[in-house]
Amino acid sequence: MGKAITARNEDYSQWYNDLILKSELADYSVVRGCMIIKPYGFALWENMRDALDKMFKDTGHVNAYFPLFVPKSLFEAEEQNAEGFAKECAVVTHYRLKSDPTKKGKLIVDEDAKLEEELIVRPTSEAIIWSTYKNWIQSYRDLPILINQWANVVRWEMRTRLFLRTTEFLWQEGHTAHATKGEALFEARQMLDVYADFVENFMAVPVIKGIKTPNERFAGAEDTYCIEALMQDGKALQAGTSHFLGQNFAKAFDVKFSDKNNKLDHVWATSWGVSTRLIGALVMAHSDDDGLVLPPKIAPLQVVIVPIYKNDEQKALITQKVTEITAALKQLNIRVKFDDNDNNRPGWKFAEYEMKGVPVRIAIGPKDLENNTVEVARRDTKEKQSVSLENIAIYIYQLLEQIQNNMFTKAKAYVDEHITEANTWDEFIDVLENKTGFVSAHWDGTGETEEKIKDLTKATIRCIPFDAKQEEGACILTGKPSTQRVLFAKAY
Amino acid sequence: MGKAITARNEDYSQWYNDLILKSELADYSVVRGCMIIKPYGFALWENMRDALDKMFKDTGHVNAYFPLFVPKSLFEAEEQNAEGFAKECAVVTHYRLKSDPTKKGKLIVDEDAKLEEELIVRPTSEAIIWSTYKNWIQSYRDLPILINQWANVVRWEMRTRLFLRTTEFLWQEGHTAHATKGEALFEARQMLDVYADFVENFMAVPVIKGIKTPNERFAGAEDTYCIEALMQDGKALQAGTSHFLGQNFAKAFDVKFSDKNNKLDHVWATSWGVSTRLIGALVMAHSDDDGLVLPPKIAPLQVVIVPIYKNDEQKALITQKVTEITAALKQLNIRVKFDDNDNNRPGWKFAEYEMKGVPVRIAIGPKDLENNTVEVARRDTKEKQSVSLENIAIYIYQLLEQIQNNMFTKAKAYVDEHITEANTWDEFIDVLENKTGFVSAHWDGTGETEEKIKDLTKATIRCIPFDAKQEEGACILTGKPSTQRVLFAKAY
Repeated sequence: MGKAITARNEDYSQWYNDLILKSELADYSVVRGCMIIKPYGFALWENMRDALDKMFKDTGHVNAYFPLFVPKSLFEAEEQNAEGFAKECAVVTHYRLKSDPTKKGKLIVDEDAKLEEELIVRPTSEAIIWSTYKNWIQSYRDLPILINQWANVVRWEMRTRLFLRTTEFLWQEGHTAHATKGEALFEARQMLDVYADFVENFMAVPVIKGIKTPNERFAGAEDTYCIEALMQDGKALQAGTSHFLGQNFAKAFDVKFSDKNNKLDHVWATSWGVSTRLIGALVMAHSDDDGLVLPPKIAPLQVVIVPIYKNDEQKALITQKVTEITAALKQLNIRVKFDDNDNNRPGWKFAEYEMKGVPVRIAIGPKDLENNTVEVARRDTKEKQSVSLENIAIYIYQLLEQIQNNMFTKAKAYVDEHITEANTWDEFIDVLENKTGFVSAHWDGTGETEEKIKDLTKATIRCIPFDAKQEEGACILTGKPSTQRVLFAKAY
Repeated sequence: MGKAITARNEDYSQWYNDLILKSELADYSVVRGCMIIKPYGFALWENMRDALDKMFKDTGHVNAYFPLFVPKSLFEAEEQNAEGFAKECAVVTHYRLKSDPTKKGKLIVDEDAKLEEELIVRPTSEAIIWSTYKNWIQSYRDLPILINQWANVVRWEMRTRLFLRTTEFLWQEGHTAHATKGEALFEARQMLDVYADFVENFMAVPVIKGIKTPNERFAGAEDTYCIEALMQDGKALQAGTSHFLGQNFAKAFDVKFSDKNNKLDHVWATSWGVSTRLIGALVMAHSDDDGLVLPPKIAPLQVVIVPIYKNDEQKALITQKVTEITAALKQLNIRVKFDDNDNNRPGWKFAEYEMKGVPVRIAIGPKDLENNTVEVARRDTKEKQSVSLENIAIYIYQLLEQIQNNMFTKAKAYVDEHITEANTWDEFIDVLENKTGFVSAHWDGTGETEEKIKDLTKATIRCIPFDAKQEEGACILTGKPSTQRVLFAKAY
């Protein structure tokens, strides 16, 4: 069937690429660094997006849409932000093509249609949005503004990987405006909690919440909060960030409001985003050498039913029974497919749906009809069981919940096993090289030391966990005093 | 309250712009020709998108996502298509900015980061998608491909108007691939029916289905089907198009499949799209001098409840009663808001929700509490009625249905009154100038005549209606023989 993929322990990176392609989540495109999200991958993204969108709305946010292009003069207004993204900007310079006079049927850029001011394809939308908020905000009555946008953004990455790092990607970006620092801080922290809730409870991927060091902060932020996940190869992956932007953008775009006492002040801001990168995290956290393992809550397909028959008569009887089963499953809002395609054999189908990570497979043959049973196979544990058709829908419903929980529990145990305290440089290196995962170690708090450790080990500080205990210690590299441990890891 | 807008009969065009801004559907942006879809407008778009998306899925389509950028060499592969869009293309030529050595804090395009091949920001995605389908299609077993994409596209328009014509807009584009011509023709026609169904039954805007003349065809199509709507000023608006692309793109991108007999043939294609332009049509078809009039099925808010009280005690009693009402309405999935904001008076709120086109307003005061009634006002007819709270939810549910139907009936009557047969040139001019609307007239079938009529009158052939009767006649301009009438109109 040509669906075999490289094993994880043979070449983890190749396993990942093979898996994305073979499971039909995505495909490469002819456009450098851009990918095509295939229907199966997009159905997964839709489920993720819809769940997140509901959580945003439940916390009072509304969606809007701002332009794709940012005029250069706006883009450069917040200097830190501009500097942070300048090296990755796709730039529109012309607005027309014309026929190539030297080659029939070919087109060239029309030099007469050069823009007076270049347009940046948004790498993020703070600039365009804050230049707009200026017109929308005069008084405290106009605040807060709690807007989210689902959009595509472009960052010209030199090394790209499907889902993890692509030149164009899909994401959501929240941009909120507040009257007080406290409110903005609360918002930034609240949205990080929303992300953690989503990633843990829908994607079944445990995360560590914390704060980024100044070196790792979003360009233009005062503080960046993050959730960090751990992949099966022991590397960390930043799964979402929420930024407290202080008054930086309000100052850059001169956005002021008059408070209840008619005093003018700059507005406080946050921004927060997650992207299709989450799909990369999902794949790498759960999948195995046979394919994807998808958590039921967001799996495009939760149950597949495969009939096993030798002749048309058997198939007809099975189909009749399956019609009852699917009706009962759909009543419980279970996403089910009956694959009665004659062109493929059951064994081929089993492998296909394993590759696609469908959480539950039901097989039904003539013997099952006699016994009023089906064979139920779990994708996560590979366990198979003969199950009575009596109350099968409720059984499957509960099984899906069980799979969701089991996937989280398993991933959580892996993370917990892979947070290792290191108290000497040798220990630190040993964990990074051999055990992998997060290393919890003391750090003297300087950017220089952080940079040096990165140069020496490729490990970065993933975050200062919110729940870090205050304790006396000595920096793992310099021996200088430190009051808390931070989490280091090699990362995607 | 500063919410008054220009009257329609004073300046229709200004009325439209005022209305879009005052109802907070959208705002101008600093980016030339691009608009900001504000939260209220975006909520409307979300409802439209979700209804359409369900209809696409119910007809077997799946969503996917293809890159924003199209390399120039791909873009020019289908020559007609390329030629049709060449003059409207935003072109990315560079992928990096750098610090301006002459101005601190400013950025300039880095000339060292010039792309070898320019990238076109997609004005439509046939080229990028068909270059991909080439890799996905080998055999008849790979067909049909029924993919839709929700995306932003860019067409550099010289004269732009909010929603109706913007440089960047949001849309969906379906791109399907088929083994036979018949299947592709069926698909193109089916999707036009889906559009007509949506626009008539959700937007309450009646449409005429027909086929475009060769002059008005989509660049690269063999045939373009369209739905045409009529605005209150008597101008037509193309609300959606579905294209039978023949084998043009398959040939341009060399996409072949082997049929059941192992014979190679080029694949047959369709594409179809509707955009945020539909919001412009919606606004212009129904709204009045007091603001938007939105059909209940897609209105972001279907019912608003405004309390009328003189003191806190009254407000508390009203609030208690409203809690019951909103609970009952929400049980029926009615989108309801209770506006108990103390900062605005009831009269202000009435005007505000009229501007926003909320289909039903419920007002409730102390007298109503005594009588167990509320005052119900319809946005479409402006009728007010005192209604018993007994079974109020069901009453409102039925009223919303009635409003939906009434809006369609009213708009349909307007269109029916504005399709006028003209048999002489004088009649033709008279209808166009005075009565306005569609003119049903004979045409000799040549592009030259069509062009000449356009030059003389600004009217274009909107479509050859599917239901046009075959009848002998003489072309309205040239007197040459014709076998059927076509619909002319001035159009947006």
